Parts: sequence; structure tokens; C-alpha cells
Amino acid sequence: MQHWKSEKTPSLSIFYQKANGNARRVVCVTSGGTTAPLEQRCVRYVDNFSSGHRGATSTEYFLKAGYAVIFLYRRGSFQPFCRSLPEHPLLECFESTNESTIQVRKAYSEAVKGAIIDHHAAVADGLLLKLPYSTIFEYLQMLQMVAISVRCLGPRAMFYLAAAVSDYYVPWKDMVEHKIQSGSLLLDVKLIQVPKMLSVVRNEWAPSAFCISFKLETDSNILLNKADKALENYKMHAVVANELSTRKEEVVVVTRADKTTVRRNKSQSGDDVENPLIRLLSERHSTYIEDFSR
Amino acid sequence: MQHWKSEKTPSLSIFYQKANGNARRVVCVTSGGTTAPLEQRCVRYVDNFSSGHRGATSTEYFLKAGYAVIFLYRRGSFQPFCRSLPEHPLLECFESTNESTIQVRKAYSEAVKGAIIDHHAAVADGLLLKLPYSTIFEYLQMLQMVAISVRCLGPRAMFYLAAAVSDYYVPWKDMVEHKIQSGSLLLDVKLIQVPKMLSVVRNEWAPSAFCISFKLETDSNILLNKADKALENYKMHAVVANELSTRKEEVVVVTRADKTTVRRNKSQSGDDVENPLIRLLSERHSTYIEDFSR
Repeated sequence: MQHWKSEKTPSLSIFYQKANGNARRVVCVTSGGTTAPLEQRCVRYVDNFSSGHRGATSTEYFLKAGYAVIFLYRRGSFQPFCRSLPEHPLLECFESTNESTIQVRKAYSEAVKGAIIDHHAAVADGLLLKLPYSTIFEYLQMLQMVAISVRCLGPRAMFYLAAAVSDYYVPWKDMVEHKIQSGSLLLDVKLIQVPKMLSVVRNEWAPSAFCISFKLETDSNILLNKADKALENYKMHAVVANELSTRKEEVVVVTRADKTTVRRNKSQSGDDVENPLIRLLSERHSTYIEDFSR
Repeated sequence: MQHWKSEKTPSLSIFYQKANGNARRVVCVTSGGTTAPLEQRCVRYVDNFSSGHRGATSTEYFLKAGYAVIFLYRRGSFQPFCRSLPEHPLLECFESTNESTIQVRKAYSEAVKGAIIDHHAAVADGLLLKLPYSTIFEYLQMLQMVAISVRCLGPRAMFYLAAAVSDYYVPWKDMVEHKIQSGSLLLDVKLIQVPKMLSVVRNEWAPSAFCISFKLETDSNILLNKADKALENYKMHAVVANELSTRKEEVVVVTRADKTTVRRNKSQSGDDVENPLIRLLSERHSTYIEDFSR
């Protein structure tokens, strides 16, 4: 089985056909930060911290829940099925037994096998389509392409917008061409607000899709208030509120009707907060689909 | 052979002892960009583009030339012996043969074996010590630690400063604690010049070491002029001048005595510009060591 082949020829329409044929729900998971270049021939950029752990983990649970997943991810960020592996899996998980053969180190045997087999199976079965981006420009372009193309699925499409998208950028036309010189003592970078695309996704690009956005803050005092505002301003169906320091333990799912705190099951070793989170969102999505067709 | 073990217990003094015992030359190769955080609990940062390809490739050629290498690298950047591999080697170079076994895909067989065996051998033999960093603060701290500790080797130490270090940063004490709020239409980021540490390396931390720095520009018209200035200002022994678009084909080695253009041998498939570059620098380093002891 050459699972990798389907990875080399991603095609949204084939992906939808398959999902549609099986009456699957499709979720577009965005994951990782976006860069805002400061120069057209880019050397410097403003970046957002995001490992992509949330998006990669959620993708695994969406697949488990029966979704087909479009994984729109920042180059270099975490990949589904690979999060328990060390940073350089090839160098750290393998050893040379003699001058010409290699083998997986025993401690990593299950993790390595699982990663390769589960990942390839999802891609080969047409359940996982991976699309990489780096800059805010690439991200927005690809999000638009996915959003418009996913219309054919109506309410069965979900957007799970976990990417840490830049709030500020320098529009392309305002950017200097060459590297900013480093002669002066001070560098004054003026960035403007990135157009809020959440409203556009909801209202124009994919008006029937079920839309989830994220709010991350380091200050818990302002978090829920900001989540409420995002819900209101962008007409999201739910906002997942998370605080930087506790984001792997608990999140709050904020909807117009209620606020539900979702926690990782600590008594179960290896459980993730994404497990109950995706279960809850999948249920809400089912209700949404039912209500939609009434 | 469990080569990986030595990777888990890096120790500069043991590294030097081994190198000293074998009368080896030691080079500290810095590689990749540095980040300048904008918040103390960092979500946003200014980053420099650098894949770390130059540093990783040069490390291979320094090892070939008989050097022991301290590889001070940006987390996530290119690793020595791995540059011919795809972005996610584990996912792209392996395939599942059935439900429970995996194997290397034929096309990647040599590259994967070579990467693991050569990398582990260099680490196990005490010839490659890898130290990761992310922020400009970590980078400077580790560079200082290496520079001061390498004094014991006198002129046999080399610094090959290929990292794309931030020119501007926000000093820690001036940084806001929490994530900058995204309410306003404009974000005005004021950064100040990073203290020029090249002079400090040369004059204070490691005054006997042979020091090479890099100058990268996108505008070839100002490149050599800027390289000359760097040579003069920081008393480097050589500055490697490279232009962004042609940097994998040719570079110019600028010293007080001469300017030498070094080109990749195009007639030899797979040759790198780092091959003649490291050969030249190794020769110059030999001359430097001889002159030093006179």
C-alpha cells in the first residue's frame, strides 16, 4: 500500500466527493500561528506563538468521531498522530545497530508505528487532507478557497478555527521591498489590524457551516468577556475560551445559550482536554444539522 | 551501540577534553534565526527568516575537515545530515506494509540511513554537541557560555556565526507582561538595537579564537560595502558576504587582505557552496594558528 501517494495529490473536490458519498461531516481545522512579513523579500516577520498542539490533537479526535478533516496548518507546527514523538523523531527514535542498518529504539516503537500507520491510513482513506501555509496572506487565501468550496456540504461542514492568526500586519502594498537596514538605534514598526475574516467566513464564504473560533488570553480576568464579544461580533456558533497556562487542562465552550467548562480526565492517563471538547462540539454540530433542515 | 545516550548528556568540558586530547580544532557554528519576544508571557515575537540550512550544511563539512563542532541552533531549524530529507521525514519517508509493520520507502532508503548513522556517529564520537535556543536572550547567554569556556583551546577555537541574529529587540524590563490587546486599529512596536555582541566575543569572551561572521543582504549593491564595515567594526577575521537569492551558489569571503569568491561546483552533482567555503576557512584557520604561536 503506497499511502503517501494520495498525500502528493490533494484535491478538495475528490475529498468532498468521498465525504459526501459516505454522508460524512467535514471539519476544517486551522492550526498554528501565521506570520506577518515586514519586508516583501522577507527576512523579518512578526509571528504568533502557537505550537499547533491544539489543532493536531483535535484532528485526531475529529477523525475518531467520524469526521473527514481538512487540516490547514502552519509549516513546521505539530502534525496529527505525532505529538507524543520527540522534536526530531528520525534522529531521536532510531538507532544504528551497525554500520549499515537502523532500527526503531524500543521505547519509541509503539509511538513511531502508531504515528506512521494511523497517519497514512487517514490520508489514504480520504479522511485527512493536509494544506500548509506560513504567512497571513497564504492562510487567508487558503481559508477562502476551502470555505467557498465547502458550501456544497451545507450544514455538515464545520470550521474549527484554532490557528493563532495575526491580529496585525503590514499590507503587501505598504511593505518595503528590501531588508530593513539595521543602522538606526530604533526600529519603529507600524502594523494595522488584519481585517476580521471570521465575519466574512460566517456571512459570505460559508454561511451554512457550523463555526467555532478560539480566544486565547494570558489574563484570565478578561477571557470570558472577550469570548462573549467574539461570539457576538462574528456570529460564531461557539467560542472556545482558553487561558495560556491552563489550556491543556480545561477550556470553556461559550455559546449564546450557555458556558460549558470542559476538563481533561486526569484519572485516565494520557487523556486530552480535546477528547471531551470534540465530543461536545460534535453533539452540538449534530443538533445544528437537525435544526438546519427543519 | 546506543549512540543517542551521549546526546542526552551534553557537557562542554567533556567535549573539550576529548577534542583537546586529540588535538582537534573546535568550531562553534551558530545556526537559524532568533526571536525577539514582544510580551513577557510571550505570544507575539519578531522573527528573522533563516532555515538554518547554511549552519547545518557547514557543520557536515567542518566534521569532514576534522573539526569538533558545537552546533548552537534555533529550535526547529535544519539539522546536520538531514537536509536532503523532506519536511516530515517520519511521515514521508516511511510506509506501512500492513497493519502493524513499517519500512523505509525505497526512494529514501539511503538518505534516511545516512542521516541516522552519520548523525549518531558524530555525536557518539564526541565530535558534535548540539545546543538549542529560541529567543535572542537564550542565544546570547549560550554564546557567552560557549565563548568563555572555549578559551582553554586558544587559537584552535573558531566561531562561525551563521545565525541570523535579531538586529532589534525589546529589552526584558521594557516588555509588557500580558498579551498585547488587539482592540486598536494600529500596533506601534518600538524596538531598540540589540547590543553588538560580535565585538564582545572578539575582545572579551574569546580573544584568541578565529572569528567568522556573516552578512546577508537582499540588495547586492550594498553587500560588500556592509561586509567591509562589519570586518572593520567588529575586528572579525573574515566576513562571509551572501545575497539572499544566490546564497546557495556563491559567497564572497572578505578579509582585511583580500576578497575571495567561492562557488559551488555545478559540474559535480550535489556539491554545496559550503564545500569550498569550509575548505578555504579551514586553511585560513591553520595559518592563523601558526601565526598565533610565533
